[in-house]
Amino acid sequence: MGIKVKHHPWNIIQDFWDPDLQEDAEAIFSLGNGKMGHRGNLEEYFSGPTLQGTYIAGVYYPDKTRVGWWKNGYPDYFAKIINAPDWRGVKTTVNGVKLDLAKVKIIDFERVLDMKQGFLSKSFIAELNNGQRLKIHSIRFLSMANDEIGAIKYEITPLNFGADLQIILDIDGDVKNRDANYGEKFWEEVEIDIEPFPYLITRTKKAEFLEKKGKKSPQFYVCNAFDTQIFIDNLQQTVISEFKTQPKYIAQIYNFKLKQNQTLTIYKYVSVTSSVFYKDLEQLRCKAFENLDIALGLGFDELLKQHIQAWDEKWKQSDIVIQGDVAAQQGIRFNIFQLNQTYTGKYKNLNIGPKGFTGEKYGGVTYWDTEAFCLPFYLSTAPREVARNLLIYRYNHLPKAIENAQKLGFSGGAALYPMVTINGEECHNEWEITFEEIHRNGAIAYAIYNYIRYNDEPQYLAQYGLEVLIAISRFWAQRVNWSKPKKKYVILGVTGPNEYENNVNNNWYTNYIATWTLRYTLESINYVKQNFGDDYKRIVQKTNFDEETETLHWRHIIENMYYPYDENLNIILQQEGYLDKEIVPASKIPENQRPINQHWSWDRILRSCYIKQADVIQGLFFFEHEFDLETIARNFYFYEPLTVHESSLSPSIYSIVASKIGDEQKAYELYLRTARLDLDDYNKEVREGLHITSMGGTWMSLTYGFGGMRIKNNRIAFSPFVPQKWQSFSFKINFRNWLLKIYVDKKSVLIDNLSDEPIDLYLYDKPYTIKPHDSLRAKAQHVKHKTQLAFFDK
Amino acid sequence: MGIKVKHHPWNIIQDFWDPDLQEDAEAIFSLGNGKMGHRGNLEEYFSGPTLQGTYIAGVYYPDKTRVGWWKNGYPDYFAKIINAPDWRGVKTTVNGVKLDLAKVKIIDFERVLDMKQGFLSKSFIAELNNGQRLKIHSIRFLSMANDEIGAIKYEITPLNFGADLQIILDIDGDVKNRDANYGEKFWEEVEIDIEPFPYLITRTKKAEFLEKKGKKSPQFYVCNAFDTQIFIDNLQQTVISEFKTQPKYIAQIYNFKLKQNQTLTIYKYVSVTSSVFYKDLEQLRCKAFENLDIALGLGFDELLKQHIQAWDEKWKQSDIVIQGDVAAQQGIRFNIFQLNQTYTGKYKNLNIGPKGFTGEKYGGVTYWDTEAFCLPFYLSTAPREVARNLLIYRYNHLPKAIENAQKLGFSGGAALYPMVTINGEECHNEWEITFEEIHRNGAIAYAIYNYIRYNDEPQYLAQYGLEVLIAISRFWAQRVNWSKPKKKYVILGVTGPNEYENNVNNNWYTNYIATWTLRYTLESINYVKQNFGDDYKRIVQKTNFDEETETLHWRHIIENMYYPYDENLNIILQQEGYLDKEIVPASKIPENQRPINQHWSWDRILRSCYIKQADVIQGLFFFEHEFDLETIARNFYFYEPLTVHESSLSPSIYSIVASKIGDEQKAYELYLRTARLDLDDYNKEVREGLHITSMGGTWMSLTYGFGGMRIKNNRIAFSPFVPQKWQSFSFKINFRNWLLKIYVDKKSVLIDNLSDEPIDLYLYDKPYTIKPHDSLRAKAQHVKHKTQLAFFDK
Repeated sequence: MGIKVKHHPWNIIQDFWDPDLQEDAEAIFSLGNGKMGHRGNLEEYFSGPTLQGTYIAGVYYPDKTRVGWWKNGYPDYFAKIINAPDWRGVKTTVNGVKLDLAKVKIIDFERVLDMKQGFLSKSFIAELNNGQRLKIHSIRFLSMANDEIGAIKYEITPLNFGADLQIILDIDGDVKNRDANYGEKFWEEVEIDIEPFPYLITRTKKAEFLEKKGKKSPQFYVCNAFDTQIFIDNLQQTVISEFKTQPKYIAQIYNFKLKQNQTLTIYKYVSVTSSVFYKDLEQLRCKAFENLDIALGLGFDELLKQHIQAWDEKWKQSDIVIQGDVAAQQGIRFNIFQLNQTYTGKYKNLNIGPKGFTGEKYGGVTYWDTEAFCLPFYLSTAPREVARNLLIYRYNHLPKAIENAQKLGFSGGAALYPMVTINGEECHNEWEITFEEIHRNGAIAYAIYNYIRYNDEPQYLAQYGLEVLIAISRFWAQRVNWSKPKKKYVILGVTGPNEYENNVNNNWYTNYIATWTLRYTLESINYVKQNFGDDYKRIVQKTNFDEETETLHWRHIIENMYYPYDENLNIILQQEGYLDKEIVPASKIPENQRPINQHWSWDRILRSCYIKQADVIQGLFFFEHEFDLETIARNFYFYEPLTVHESSLSPSIYSIVASKIGDEQKAYELYLRTARLDLDDYNKEVREGLHITSMGGTWMSLTYGFGGMRIKNNRIAFSPFVPQKWQSFSFKINFRNWLLKIYVDKKSVLIDNLSDEPIDLYLYDKPYTIKPHDSLRAKAQHVKHKTQLAFFDK
Repeated sequence: MGIKVKHHPWNIIQDFWDPDLQEDAEAIFSLGNGKMGHRGNLEEYFSGPTLQGTYIAGVYYPDKTRVGWWKNGYPDYFAKIINAPDWRGVKTTVNGVKLDLAKVKIIDFERVLDMKQGFLSKSFIAELNNGQRLKIHSIRFLSMANDEIGAIKYEITPLNFGADLQIILDIDGDVKNRDANYGEKFWEEVEIDIEPFPYLITRTKKAEFLEKKGKKSPQFYVCNAFDTQIFIDNLQQTVISEFKTQPKYIAQIYNFKLKQNQTLTIYKYVSVTSSVFYKDLEQLRCKAFENLDIALGLGFDELLKQHIQAWDEKWKQSDIVIQGDVAAQQGIRFNIFQLNQTYTGKYKNLNIGPKGFTGEKYGGVTYWDTEAFCLPFYLSTAPREVARNLLIYRYNHLPKAIENAQKLGFSGGAALYPMVTINGEECHNEWEITFEEIHRNGAIAYAIYNYIRYNDEPQYLAQYGLEVLIAISRFWAQRVNWSKPKKKYVILGVTGPNEYENNVNNNWYTNYIATWTLRYTLESINYVKQNFGDDYKRIVQKTNFDEETETLHWRHIIENMYYPYDENLNIILQQEGYLDKEIVPASKIPENQRPINQHWSWDRILRSCYIKQADVIQGLFFFEHEFDLETIARNFYFYEPLTVHESSLSPSIYSIVASKIGDEQKAYELYLRTARLDLDDYNKEVREGLHITSMGGTWMSLTYGFGGMRIKNNRIAFSPFVPQKWQSFSFKINFRNWLLKIYVDKKSVLIDNLSDEPIDLYLYDKPYTIKPHDSLRAKAQHVKHKTQLAFFDK
């Protein structure tokens, strides 16, 4: 069962047709260009199971919170990037019969996602009940060169008959979200016309429940305009068409008489503009028409060419080549492709949803995934502004994060960044997460550190970073409390990254990232004070910062934080009391009970020792430089066997750490669980959408993991090895002003400095300098860790 | 603000009219007779704020679960006793204008709930805009003598004009629940007719979502039939009427021309039958008509007389007389009255909802409140079968409780009784309660112990009790686990009675009641084995009980359970790690932040030390006989200052324990928080309904608390004192075969043995025998506890 795509280095190929697997295919064949995206829905009529999904970045609806039992502090709504008007329809009626792909016989079906060139194509022969056959071929893309344009080339050829065809090209704004909390539709029609182009302007409804509370409801306007070009056997035609409009719907209807073997080609050009980027209706409309004029002027082939060039630029910086394993090659490229489709970093007001534009789950809005799993990818594969914009997104949300903390009872400028947000307001509504999974606040601080460390750009602190750090530190300083029995600071009632434990006390990861934030903030204060005196004064004033008192308190916390530890096993404890549980390795769970989150009651999961995703190990990854290898290894060998990796974010982190401690086999085994997660539908849920943010983790397990990439003494460092099964792999890194290519095979490592400046770096901990446009070649090493500790029987 | 009723020993009197407080009044003026009940809604038109509520015992709808985030193990639905067809309408139009009590001027309004006689009356003068005045007087009751009959006497007199009146007498089945999860209406019409009486049969909808899952949806049928008698100036009239029907609605419409000062009297007799008690439609219909025939035959006055007699019987057994404090007298009678209205114990398939028939909250279904707070009241004030039926209700649910445990991963006949249920299935859907508030299972066991202890009826074990005990013990035996670090059994991930802590480890109360259950089950096994050998064999076979292995394990748990304790303060710890919190007495919370559950975020409440309701103290109340007074007192003085009593179930338990340790002032102070909770609307929420189950607690704080009533060496014991502010109080106790009256004033105690048998009992720990129909008089003592420990500054 499940969709199986063919292995190919650059393409994702589905060479069979199964209408029941269309939802799976829709996720895998998703397209995006950062500003919009959609699932791989068909252009054709299709009455089979489908999750129609078209999304426009930043266009959301505040869907009224739905909970069973209200808790004080819950948000009013869950913001979701909503299903937007669907402009992809090219719907055919043959001699009066609808060409419905769920109802006709489909022969020689092939659907291809060309990742190198960034387009989706599809070809098949449809055989009607009466034996009449039509050949169909379509190409679709969302331009990376002009991110408000989409285009479809649709060819149709009757193979064994002369056909009366009616073709409907439409824009359907009467769409809904499957996950609407109260079954509502979110769109209203604003304008519909056929001049100068057929177009539909819709707007999102105002959320009445917000307005009733005296709060402003956000409202977005979207314009979808389209035009067509018609060819028969490569000769352009002028064809009379009709228009049909319904509420929130416009269609252009063509009628053709085709002879046998004549090919009709329709080009459908679409422009999608939204009020996220244009302030008034006039602008929105004009810009949509302007885009269409450009598209029509260029024509399909030229538009596609520009699109492919834009993708070429992306691949130049971000491609990873794996030799000796086509499945792995395809897997890593799929990850890179999807990350680039989801976020381009052009806009400070956009971010990355866990499922990007590929499904409804998680509402397309922002989680800590962005900072912990995606930032490193964009840091290394895209121009500096891209990662910077991810940081500034959070900087701009700082006032809302402060409000959010106030709502929970904190004061004095303390900030708690939301678990889920699109506009800075918390949208999550599950107390054990919303209020308790506060380690996310640390990830925001860590991202600042990570960005600065990577780019050697401490001045970022003066402009943006320090304000955020102070606010987060203030939160930690209030969130801890002094335990009399322990004579230590404790952090009570939290949920760590391992969400299979809720409301625990002294989650080690949380306690650690809290004091780390305080330490880093103190350092940053000193740096800014010394180097950007005026900025420091501005920040002190703006944040009402009482340096002496506040930092004194922070130092006291840093020096007196409680960290749960077991002296017998000599391991860090995930949380206080963790060893009171029955500790049995996950390998003992019967296979038919996995994944446990689909087989066990929530309470059984909670009481068990099983770990959903890296928790202690997430900390040892982030703060690796503060621990010796022995400690990291001991904890790895204790916690990995207890981890069920039921979050897509888990195996990548464990894989990186396994690489670090020299357990190459384990590193590769875990890599496999993340690399083709969606292509092989490991979790049997790909139909819901792709795990976009976890793809950043996959990328890391290859570059940070197998590549051993780190920043060390302010230089880049590599300690690469190639997994047994592969011949070689290579990746490119955009590091500060340098572009590097790292190649590794069984015997050797080759690092090319593709830049005009010499670079000082480390390879296997030894310093080297590589001249501009020169290379470093060295023998490949495998760092073997001495002992593979076994805490458990197999 | 809020409704203020007049103090009166027997009556609840509202002597003002405020349409905005009608919802408050509706709760307070609720009526019930165990089989049905309703809020104090008006018979008249009323366009002001109202929560219309008519409930029929056992008639529920499985409302599809509504949660934000689904957790494995959640139930399909929340069963709720739904708002049933409203038969109370007597709606008047005066010269073409609706008499709407929200729109006319109301003069001399008085509404009286006569608790002694069990009826609700109301009188007022309505002045229309044109100055025309009508005098209205109504009486309404739900017969305690025939619990399927309700009646209204409605008198209307135009005072200063001749009136054209249209009066609509209706049954309105087109009602809905305000708390319907998806806004659905739950009723469908089945039959509507005017012969032999106007009647409406409705049925609850089938829950489609259940049927789709292949499960059977429950469905209930209800027949409402009515008839009228008309008098003008005491002369019976034969008046032609019209009927009007609409879907789920039937009305009988009368037109009258009244002269000034003529009084029209309408008697509306209603019979309500449900398929909870009648198997087919024919029976349902016939029984309704039969009831009406009886009612019409008796007439209003005779019906009322029988009703009053039935109440008289109840008061004879259950009245409490307080002298010197009318407010207290009214308060305690209101509690007793409501308990008797809610549950009569006639039917094994009924139970007690936390709000009885007075509102929608908690769905009218069963919580552990029944066993912990209500059972003692019925044990002492009603015939033995009444309390017994409460126990058998749970016995009958045992198979479902075993299923429920299986759903959560338990096996081998372990039972987890639901948090909320009507048919034995769990309906609650909040993981920290549903899955974790497992101490409820202990309360079911404790109720068996309590019933047997009170009635000296250990043979109950053989017939019903032991099966339940074994199943609950099996649950505990699987729910504990062995902690290697502690070398003890622990119970992880629970919520104790204090729901302001969730998912804690080793809640002392839970651990204690778990081992207590195991101990009691072991004892019970021995008893049944020795005294009811055949029953024991039957039970062993039925439950597949492996006595040797299972009891060995239980003994090991009993001997090795972990109980959190602080050696420094010498107190029991509510849960492991409780003292890691910041411990500040509740008196330090600013008044404007109370109650904290209306002012603080949930996470702030959870992290705080504040206790919602008795937890350690609940345990010390239940298991008082296993602790010395010093221990009880120490823990009381530690925990009471940390308790915010934001559950209605809290102050009563603390009050009883305060009485026990001789802190009379504290006992009285806490009593005041429970005794008039609803009458004085202490929590500003009475409009939602009355706190029926907490009324059992109030009764206990008077009898167990001030009265010092206990079972001791298999005899009843008293240690009464009268609170300073009162002159005296007295209560009656139905104990085994005896009826006792206990009177206490400042100087003396008087115990009357109202039975035909002598009784051996204790008074102030001294044994006495009282001959039949004789009395014991003794000096009143005040048991003063030596030290009032102060753990905190004021």
